[in-house]
Amino acid sequence: MIAELTAACADLVTDPDLLVSYQRDEADLCDSAPPLAVARPRTTEEVAGLLRVAAAHRIPVVPQGARTGLAGGANASANALVVSLTGMDRILDVDPANRTATVQAGVVNSALREAVREHGLTYPPDPGSWESSTIGGNVATNAGGMCCVKYGVTTEYVLGLTVVLADGEVLRCGRRTAKGVAGYDLARLFVGSEGTLGVITEVTVKLRPQAEPALTLVAEFPSVAKAGEAVSAITAAGLTPSLLELIDRTMLRALEAYRPMGLDTGVQALLLAAADTGPRAQADLEKIAQCCGDAEVYVATDAAEADALLTARRNAHPALEHLAATTFGDGGAVVVDDVAVPRSRLADLVEGVERIGERTGVIVATVGHAGDGNLHPNIIIDRTDPASLAAGRRAFDDIMALGLELGGTVTGEHGVGLLKRDWLERELGPVGLRVHHAIKAALDPHGILNPGKVIAPAVDSPA
Amino acid sequence: MIAELTAACADLVTDPDLLVSYQRDEADLCDSAPPLAVARPRTTEEVAGLLRVAAAHRIPVVPQGARTGLAGGANASANALVVSLTGMDRILDVDPANRTATVQAGVVNSALREAVREHGLTYPPDPGSWESSTIGGNVATNAGGMCCVKYGVTTEYVLGLTVVLADGEVLRCGRRTAKGVAGYDLARLFVGSEGTLGVITEVTVKLRPQAEPALTLVAEFPSVAKAGEAVSAITAAGLTPSLLELIDRTMLRALEAYRPMGLDTGVQALLLAAADTGPRAQADLEKIAQCCGDAEVYVATDAAEADALLTARRNAHPALEHLAATTFGDGGAVVVDDVAVPRSRLADLVEGVERIGERTGVIVATVGHAGDGNLHPNIIIDRTDPASLAAGRRAFDDIMALGLELGGTVTGEHGVGLLKRDWLERELGPVGLRVHHAIKAALDPHGILNPGKVIAPAVDSPA
Repeated sequence: MIAELTAACADLVTDPDLLVSYQRDEADLCDSAPPLAVARPRTTEEVAGLLRVAAAHRIPVVPQGARTGLAGGANASANALVVSLTGMDRILDVDPANRTATVQAGVVNSALREAVREHGLTYPPDPGSWESSTIGGNVATNAGGMCCVKYGVTTEYVLGLTVVLADGEVLRCGRRTAKGVAGYDLARLFVGSEGTLGVITEVTVKLRPQAEPALTLVAEFPSVAKAGEAVSAITAAGLTPSLLELIDRTMLRALEAYRPMGLDTGVQALLLAAADTGPRAQADLEKIAQCCGDAEVYVATDAAEADALLTARRNAHPALEHLAATTFGDGGAVVVDDVAVPRSRLADLVEGVERIGERTGVIVATVGHAGDGNLHPNIIIDRTDPASLAAGRRAFDDIMALGLELGGTVTGEHGVGLLKRDWLERELGPVGLRVHHAIKAALDPHGILNPGKVIAPAVDSPA
Repeated sequence: MIAELTAACADLVTDPDLLVSYQRDEADLCDSAPPLAVARPRTTEEVAGLLRVAAAHRIPVVPQGARTGLAGGANASANALVVSLTGMDRILDVDPANRTATVQAGVVNSALREAVREHGLTYPPDPGSWESSTIGGNVATNAGGMCCVKYGVTTEYVLGLTVVLADGEVLRCGRRTAKGVAGYDLARLFVGSEGTLGVITEVTVKLRPQAEPALTLVAEFPSVAKAGEAVSAITAAGLTPSLLELIDRTMLRALEAYRPMGLDTGVQALLLAAADTGPRAQADLEKIAQCCGDAEVYVATDAAEADALLTARRNAHPALEHLAATTFGDGGAVVVDDVAVPRSRLADLVEGVERIGERTGVIVATVGHAGDGNLHPNIIIDRTDPASLAAGRRAFDDIMALGLELGGTVTGEHGVGLLKRDWLERELGPVGLRVHHAIKAALDPHGILNPGKVIAPAVDSPA
């Protein structure tokens, strides 16, 4: 079998010391194991060859990009073949006349941006991991980011895909045209399917003209409820900021402890907002400031100051790691949660999360995309302490339940992976789950594609 | 069986005189027959009851909205139950704080716009039929329109759906939040599936703040190639007009013959363009004018003049009917084609279509969404003359082949229905077709949902 895999893809890793490094993504609390082997293909044809071997031998296949995921979607199991797409890093085409680019799945998000910048174009979706995560991974998880409040998430930018199916056949779906309705929207079925329906090897994306420089402000609120009201007021005023981020008190303190910025850690919540509306940006920012009511508002006076504010926001993850380490030492861990609610329920969500933290006795630091109603409550635990782990798990479950109760979803942008499979079932309900299983069975009848991710294997699954 | 159907939905039409009027949509050249019965449900539960009866008796089900489709997707057959959704016309919820609305499938596009206007919001997708077509039909066909060049097509606005599945189960998929990645993107799988995967009964759409008043221009070109160059130049300049429509010479003459506007019918092509970018609209329109090179450019000096230009464009369909009737009398018919190519190939498409018209000896009048590379070559035939019909069919096929050859798609926004099933197979290729059949079988194992539309029944289909 290894010989067959090597024949399909010469770059096949079986050295146990190396296999360990392909074991998991960045999610805590998810099972993983070193895989059987890791293939590092360079072409769609190599991926197809690998899948044909895997199909013949019923070997589970786990596609991986940069493993920056936060839900265990790329975690390996002991009997699995990992297909690492990071070596497929060629930008195949940039077409300024049609505002499209076609790339191999392993191209890093920031590399694509860099490549199209000279044409005055950009690829908007900006997940926190944009300097390391791959377009293939972004597509497989339908990644979001900070600019999505104005510019939308990954799926809005996917025009066409090349996908290797479970039997090794190569599907080209979608299009290169601005519009098209020829048949089912297969491309968007693969977007966000987390490698469970096929292995994405090439992506044609839509590009946009570069946004104009943004003006940025920060508003300090005496209560989370006031920050939530400001977000609602901004929406109600018909404004579309290019960024609208919320940072709660715990998160703010973690940021200041990690890299002091001189932010007032006495406030209960911060909103970061930006406007990139060209000649009207100044006026829009003033209207945003007005929507913030009594909050103290500081407008960044130059690009350097604005960058500093955004850098603070972008430091959220290392700041949380720092907080976990300083609180719990080596056992410290961060469970990054991800829940989205209707914008109007944002304050209810933040306040509810605070109450959950108090009730369960765990530290929860919240940051997120307020303008989308999409927040990341980060749960800080000591993974070496069973009581802390159990309390963290309770907080996690309570946050999921709260999100659903508020009319929301258990994942706004990080995906289901292994972490949220049970909660997905609750969100989908029995009919939705049945349709998921029917589609999975239609595209992957033997259940070899990233098994156990997103949905549990069907009871009668042969795999 | 009729008794069972009546028990499921009291408003069941079986009067042959009435059945005839539910026989077909607006597509020419597609088979149709009066159905067995027409059910006019008012609730999702009634639709579910109808589908349970249909599933038990293997009755083909043809969902219908306003039957304004142009591909035969809503055409009935003699053994079919038509489920007409036009009676499900309630707007269930308008939520300005979250910029969403939830409507029953039979709500007319313009009624939704009207209902959200008082909140300063709009629902952008504007198919030509917007004053009569339903949101359910728009979603089932992923309808486009004139504003899509800036604001995107229907699928960009669909957040959540209620769908009655082939077995009568009710699926709620998608979400009410701005973002969400919980499981497969089922909502977008149903968008554009033309009633072949389920019957859409309720839709939650995303709304946008109303656009600002647009400034409009018309540019007259001495050749189609020059108009195509202008479209490319507008894209290359990073401009995003809110409307960018092309009218060729034959279409222009038809418009003038129908409702004289004083447009110069000596020119080879017109572009209509608009900018709604607020304080910069004037500057953007000037840049658009510059991109038109040597063309004669007329800027509408007031809203009335701009409206008149758009009305001329909106009159395309009646003007073509008029042309067909004046040319061929009662036998005159218009086959509305719909092809999209990469924007950079637009001029090649228009010129190729002209050559096809000359070669086949049929009148072809072209109009369409130049900014999206999506054109409607309209073929004028005499349906009572077999030679004219055959020539029209040849022109139609040659235009499809040309679209694919230019890297395009056989349907930009009208859908596949019955009209383009063979061409869809060509566009998809064997792997894509196989995946379509697998998904159809997963969701409609007995093939009762709008059978024969989009894809031919599978060879081993039990229906």
